[in-house]
Amino acid sequence: MTTQKIREGDYVLLYLSQRKTYLVKAEKGKTFHTHKGFIKFDDLIGKEYGSRILSNLGVEFAALKPMLRDYIIKSVRKTQITYPKDIALIVMFSGIGPRSRIVEAGTGTGALTTALTHYVKPDGKVYSYEIREEFLKTAKKNLKRAGLIDFVELKNKDITVGIDESDVDAVILDLATPWLVVPHAYAALKPCGTLVSFSPTIDQVVKTVEALNENSFVDIKTVECLLRGMQTVRGKTRPQTLMTGHTGYITFARKTIISEAQSNPSLDRQ
Amino acid sequence: MTTQKIREGDYVLLYLSQRKTYLVKAEKGKTFHTHKGFIKFDDLIGKEYGSRILSNLGVEFAALKPMLRDYIIKSVRKTQITYPKDIALIVMFSGIGPRSRIVEAGTGTGALTTALTHYVKPDGKVYSYEIREEFLKTAKKNLKRAGLIDFVELKNKDITVGIDESDVDAVILDLATPWLVVPHAYAALKPCGTLVSFSPTIDQVVKTVEALNENSFVDIKTVECLLRGMQTVRGKTRPQTLMTGHTGYITFARKTIISEAQSNPSLDRQ
Amino acid sequence: MTTQKIREGDYVLLYLSQRKTYLVKAEKGKTFHTHKGFIKFDDLIGKEYGSRILSNLGVEFAALKPMLRDYIIKSVRKTQITYPKDIALIVMFSGIGPRSRIVEAGTGTGALTTALTHYVKPDGKVYSYEIREEFLKTAKKNLKRAGLIDFVELKNKDITVGIDESDVDAVILDLATPWLVVPHAYAALKPCGTLVSFSPTIDQVVKTVEALNENSFVDIKTVECLLRGMQTVRGKTRPQTLMTGHTGYITFARKTIISEAQSNPSLDRQ
Amino acid sequence: MTTQKIREGDYVLLYLSQRKTYLVKAEKGKTFHTHKGFIKFDDLIGKEYGSRILSNLGVEFAALKPMLRDYIIKSVRKTQITYPKDIALIVMFSGIGPRSRIVEAGTGTGALTTALTHYVKPDGKVYSYEIREEFLKTAKKNLKRAGLIDFVELKNKDITVGIDESDVDAVILDLATPWLVVPHAYAALKPCGTLVSFSPTIDQVVKTVEALNENSFVDIKTVECLLRGMQTVRGKTRPQTLMTGHTGYITFARKTIISEAQSNPSLDRQ
Repeated sequence: MTTQKIREGDYVLLYLSQRKTYLVKAEKGKTFHTHKGFIKFDDLIGKEYGSRILSNLGVEFAALKPMLRDYIIKSVRKTQITYPKDIALIVMFSGIGPRSRIVEAGTGTGALTTALTHYVKPDGKVYSYEIREEFLKTAKKNLKRAGLIDFVELKNKDITVGIDESDVDAVILDLATPWLVVPHAYAALKPCGTLVSFSPTIDQVVKTVEALNENSFVDIKTVECLLRGMQTVRGKTRPQTLMTGHTGYITFARKTIISEAQSNPSLDRQ
Repeated sequence: MTTQKIREGDYVLLYLSQRKTYLVKAEKGKTFHTHKGFIKFDDLIGKEYGSRILSNLGVEFAALKPMLRDYIIKSVRKTQITYPKDIALIVMFSGIGPRSRIVEAGTGTGALTTALTHYVKPDGKVYSYEIREEFLKTAKKNLKRAGLIDFVELKNKDITVGIDESDVDAVILDLATPWLVVPHAYAALKPCGTLVSFSPTIDQVVKTVEALNENSFVDIKTVECLLRGMQTVRGKTRPQTLMTGHTGYITFARKTIISEAQSNPSLDRQ
Repeated sequence: MTTQKIREGDYVLLYLSQRKTYLVKAEKGKTFHTHKGFIKFDDLIGKEYGSRILSNLGVEFAALKPMLRDYIIKSVRKTQITYPKDIALIVMFSGIGPRSRIVEAGTGTGALTTALTHYVKPDGKVYSYEIREEFLKTAKKNLKRAGLIDFVELKNKDITVGIDESDVDAVILDLATPWLVVPHAYAALKPCGTLVSFSPTIDQVVKTVEALNENSFVDIKTVECLLRGMQTVRGKTRPQTLMTGHTGYITFARKTIISEAQSNPSLDRQ
Repeated sequence: MTTQKIREGDYVLLYLSQRKTYLVKAEKGKTFHTHKGFIKFDDLIGKEYGSRILSNLGVEFAALKPMLRDYIIKSVRKTQITYPKDIALIVMFSGIGPRSRIVEAGTGTGALTTALTHYVKPDGKVYSYEIREEFLKTAKKNLKRAGLIDFVELKNKDITVGIDESDVDAVILDLATPWLVVPHAYAALKPCGTLVSFSPTIDQVVKTVEALNENSFVDIKTVECLLRGMQTVRGKTRPQTLMTGHTGYITFARKTIISEAQSNPSLDRQ
């Protein structure tokens, strides 16, 4: 079996339990302290990912290789509520994949950017717009940590003013006024390109759907996703008590083109 | 703006409304009949994807380029209940992406296979096990239609007996007895590799989680996903009346390796 | 054990399965036909409620005494979407009980009226407003069948114009424009009386909550209730596939009184 | 308009906001302290319920008359997870109403007992079993506070050993091993009487449903109820972020009687 060893400078997810995981950088000579004792990185370096390691208090941790979900969760701040479940649906419904070219706004702390870039690398590209410069710094750090910075272009620009790119496969929006971006998205998208918008309030959804209807988008659909964890222990199996009741609504649409001779009397866009 | 023209033999998604879409192959000289009139493929060929076309009854259709979601939905049969929402979560939580090597079982009609292959192409590979030969034929047809057949190996084998591959990134299970596959999955996975299992009943979940606990997997988590559509019309906005109450539970886990000198007294795997 | 015998003219719920129940009147000399054979009412009369009886095809039915839930379900028409789950919450949150005096609108087919009357009888009273005369006829029939007609006053009047009663304990609304009734409800309610409104759309809820805020109501709260059935068979236990995704939102509030010398700078009404 | 004045010794719900309410007893000469200042009960006594009153810091409170929901919520302890939503469904599906005679177990802190008693008073009766004496003390206090103690008989007995009463309308169970009570409930119920059981885990539900099937119950149904709060502010309307993901499953059934000459080959009990 080929294995993958932890090298100096690599990121490691120290797993103690579902609720206690730590995303750390293995730096020579340093130690990492937890409430369950400390771990010396020198003991980690050279070990295989997936190994288990004991803290000085004898508590066992698993040294996991961070994967997309971990980078997403560790990138999330309070201002960012696009949870992995929503990101998963956004990716699926946007139709993107390897080689896709995507415009995204706003970047925020880069959680969604990380996911989009993960799926389009190495030949695709994500152009990510953000007006708040301090967020871009955090996003840059998070994307570097996930090893994805080369496949994304972070842009300190206001997307409600316009989109620089053209012929893109998808425009993905997670910002306060998505309806203002719809005409620019139409211009930037290739025919049949997809627009996906994530919004917490119903009012944002209604305005965005109206803008999509006015801009020759079809297949317009809005959903919300409720994720519920299960406690699965024989004899005590039950859904978990705590649950997030709402993150936001996801709206999808596809661009169509209309030749000059046509009108649109019959097409049911939603 | 570069555009993409519909060529003879291409697949086209004829969109009439959210509930009425048709995945058709543009064959010269042929016509496609619907309850809203017929469309001549000769009129489609040469047009750009995203164009709108009128049936002989004057009803407008959008000629969309099929994307992943369309291929998934059109591949689903009654025996296959892994809906796009579940596939989206399976993909996200499995951590796969371009270049991943994946073992999947059972193939069924190939809906999940289509998604997995979409995200790992062109350098990754999906090895898909299925014991029922008639399903493999359908899956092959569906994967060809989606242009993904070159990146998947369909295997008419019983995965509960064993897995041929090794060092794979993920094992994805959608079959009646996933717990029987867990030891084989452990052997086939690279360290830190992920196992994702989809099951409709709670009993399947409990047995699978027990098998995962017995086989040195950690980060074991089971969720279910409820997707609700919204009707977004100004002044009449409301969730849709119809909703699927249950498809299945999704269980995730990651493989760890245990050196001989270690025991595992403390690690909370779930 | 004392028992209760089925007499001529009594209503009986013939139970075949969860999905097949029949609310019938036991009439001498008549038979009731189903796809599983017929049952002679003469065989039912004199039997105890809770007995089982065979059809002429040898298929067994249980002869149950109809209870509140049965009368509600059998009163529902397409125009009426206040399901038992919503009715249960409306009753609980309205605070009503034996002796309560209630104003309700609109009556519809009387499903909610039946429940309200059931809980306030014999000393309480329900005043139910409905502008569509044909609905009142159906409601009357349904309330008679449930044995509750003596405790309700059906009124063919438009409640948006005004409420005749005063000092009532609760005003319960299930109509298109509940916000128009809020000022009348304030006038009709005793201090601390409750208003409960059921509406399918978010727009109705927002307008109603605004009217409640403007009319010195406090403790304003809006909820929606999702009910999911479970299939509980050992080894095959799972939530049911079919589920109603939305019926409506329920909004609650309580009337407060403001003396002339007071303003309301600080109270958080919601 | 007749009004209801607050008298010495009455209970008052001091309402500050949805999240801050206080159930207090108006005692002469005493004051009640909150983080928003104190209120003198002498200022409350003689006022009408529904009035608003200022604390010494000038913050306004509404002096509400406590209703069923308030008594329930204020009776709940951590060991008690039958929330108002579940209590509402239990009451509705049990078919009880004024005059009903009910057996309940376990009493716990009396939240469910309070609701059952509220709906059957003054001519009905609740017999409530509890083996833990300290809970009975709390329940007694809570039922007294709600003015319902005269309509309930609290019994320090183990219901899994047997039920003293007979010909009751309903048996309501919220305890760890409901399946052990099913045969006793069958004996205690009148024909067509209802059994309702509330359980947090799936394993409890499966065992209980099996016991119901073995004991001539029909119309067996298990549901779970998800309640979601809405934030309704024009322009910012959305479901609330926080939500309880699970309290428990509710199982309903009705007793049938089988004459000696009958078997039961065909009846679908669930």
